[in-house]
Amino acid sequence: MKKDIIVTPWEVKGNIDYDKLIKEFGTEKIDDKILNRIKKHTKDIHYMLRRNIFFSHRDLNWLLDEYEKGNKFFLYTGRAPSGPVHIGHLVPWIFTKWLQEKFNVELWFQLPDEEKFLFKENLTMKDTEKWTYENALDVIALGFDRRKTHFLIDTRHANLMYKEAVKVAKKLTFSSAKAAFGFTNETNIGQIFYTAMQAVPAFLPSVLAGKKIPCLIPLGFDQDVHFRYTRSVISKLGYYKPAIMHCRFLPGLQGLEKQGKMSASDEQTAIYTIDSKENVEFKIKKYAFSGGRETIKEHRKKGGNPEIDVSYQWLTFLEEDDKKLEKIYNNYKNGSLLTSELKQILIEKLNKFLKEHQRKRELAKKQVERYIYKGF
Amino acid sequence: MKKDIIVTPWEVKGNIDYDKLIKEFGTEKIDDKILNRIKKHTKDIHYMLRRNIFFSHRDLNWLLDEYEKGNKFFLYTGRAPSGPVHIGHLVPWIFTKWLQEKFNVELWFQLPDEEKFLFKENLTMKDTEKWTYENALDVIALGFDRRKTHFLIDTRHANLMYKEAVKVAKKLTFSSAKAAFGFTNETNIGQIFYTAMQAVPAFLPSVLAGKKIPCLIPLGFDQDVHFRYTRSVISKLGYYKPAIMHCRFLPGLQGLEKQGKMSASDEQTAIYTIDSKENVEFKIKKYAFSGGRETIKEHRKKGGNPEIDVSYQWLTFLEEDDKKLEKIYNNYKNGSLLTSELKQILIEKLNKFLKEHQRKRELAKKQVERYIYKGF
Repeated sequence: MKKDIIVTPWEVKGNIDYDKLIKEFGTEKIDDKILNRIKKHTKDIHYMLRRNIFFSHRDLNWLLDEYEKGNKFFLYTGRAPSGPVHIGHLVPWIFTKWLQEKFNVELWFQLPDEEKFLFKENLTMKDTEKWTYENALDVIALGFDRRKTHFLIDTRHANLMYKEAVKVAKKLTFSSAKAAFGFTNETNIGQIFYTAMQAVPAFLPSVLAGKKIPCLIPLGFDQDVHFRYTRSVISKLGYYKPAIMHCRFLPGLQGLEKQGKMSASDEQTAIYTIDSKENVEFKIKKYAFSGGRETIKEHRKKGGNPEIDVSYQWLTFLEEDDKKLEKIYNNYKNGSLLTSELKQILIEKLNKFLKEHQRKRELAKKQVERYIYKGF
Repeated sequence: MKKDIIVTPWEVKGNIDYDKLIKEFGTEKIDDKILNRIKKHTKDIHYMLRRNIFFSHRDLNWLLDEYEKGNKFFLYTGRAPSGPVHIGHLVPWIFTKWLQEKFNVELWFQLPDEEKFLFKENLTMKDTEKWTYENALDVIALGFDRRKTHFLIDTRHANLMYKEAVKVAKKLTFSSAKAAFGFTNETNIGQIFYTAMQAVPAFLPSVLAGKKIPCLIPLGFDQDVHFRYTRSVISKLGYYKPAIMHCRFLPGLQGLEKQGKMSASDEQTAIYTIDSKENVEFKIKKYAFSGGRETIKEHRKKGGNPEIDVSYQWLTFLEEDDKKLEKIYNNYKNGSLLTSELKQILIEKLNKFLKEHQRKRELAKKQVERYIYKGF
């Protein structure tokens, strides 16, 4: 990767070459062969798989081998609360929900309320407590099965998690943490330890069940480093290495190259799930990077460039209907669809989704406690 | 300190110069002036204070100021379970019990069951779980007030402790931990984090009470480093810096210089609280370093050296009666008391103590759960 491309758990920026990511970090492509294996069980193929939004994996063939032998897996993903949830966060969760439904499996959802506290100077534990609740509402609003979904909140489940994290931590040295995360001698000792807590939900259900259960983690590629680092330790502790599926980054409103992936802390890159419809309209119109031409005349003549147009790219993450999407692509490319019209399609799509999401988010307020794991 | 003198939480060895320890680590002497201040409240002075076994402190005058203003303190000490309790461990606890009685205060007793697991290659969490229970019996056997004594077991109280430890950890960098504990890049990330957990009981009662409560920590000098390192962080979090009282090291059977402080992992240095009376007799007779002369004739003529005689030194930690002790000192010094006779005095003292301790230790088995903190 060139130096101007950054992929860490804290920053993603640049014109990402996803093939190079696969090569550099030793993951595997999600190709037609494995898609067909998945389809045998799911009947259809989620649009995020069809469109290669989930593009890379680790040990997915092994996971399917186990599944086919009757050894069901569980899902594990999460969210470190530090601010409002935006559309980019929803991408892996929407896919995770599909996996939960299709494979009829348990989901362990981690809300590590200490992580961002440790990594962000000005964030307090009171702040992350508030965001833990707020973010939990967004997760529930997506419709995860309450009987099969278990929230783990690090400080509230420390009685379960700290003991297991310590076992992971014993097998990891500072120099290896330094190499994996780019830590320095000035890194605080909580940050250094934290990755051990993130490893725990990948094997905690096995600890609780008293038997090894395979684990599948759908996540953004930037989070891969945690498991790249701890997978072999998990296996040394006597559990299965978790399998992983990686998704691409939803670009910020101004594009990946200029601005990086959507960031909750930058108002100008993100659409939050709690944004009003006026706010959505305003931000898309004002900030969404356009692949259109300078003038309408020129656009009609030469056509726009959907490859760099953020509104179009967002629709590839959000519009389930392939035919609709293809039509938009073609019309934008041939100039019959103007940038303002494309933006309008996205605004309507987003606002329709958010209206429903916000309604469910309101209902979720009564359900939060019931999603929090209590079986201990 | 010379290089052949070692004082770390993991090793104590050499001919310790306690005045130099005070100077080097910036603590204060426990002198007659402060003893008189203590005596105002306790009426008598514990023999461990009279004999300067507790020889050093931090902020004890401040603590007494607060006490005299009506601002009661709580006590905090602990034990990292990794093996059986020996006589050396009991020294600060016996004194702590006296403080609890005289000042009528709460005691928070930490049993960090992850600490030695992280620091000892071959120790498992199952091992430390077993030793947590076994060691708790010894603490209870000393007679701490059940209504005022609260055990904190790190993995069982992680829901209370981890959240607070993370706040401590955020303010400590790896380079400062390196300097304080001599860590290297090959230190595991659990060890690096652990000191934050040890800091927590010094302010947890304040968190629970919702107000600042002074804290007094009686401990062996080797444990001072944890609080030297975290005291200022605790104050940055808005709590009082804990006051500390430091005790000398009970030498191993073969003497501090040769063998270091009594160590639970070395059978030949230690008398365990669960040793049989035959075992005590055997070990003292075989291993206890003698300050006597080569022959009985020479001993009668020139006298022995109580300063280097381990049996005598142990009696200074165990024999409450000053007059008895003085008589033993004089008789050994003038040669009328032989080493074998001195050893016999120690054997009888120890076995009398251990018989009673073991009886109470048996009764403690029904009480352990009642000492474990549950108010959360």
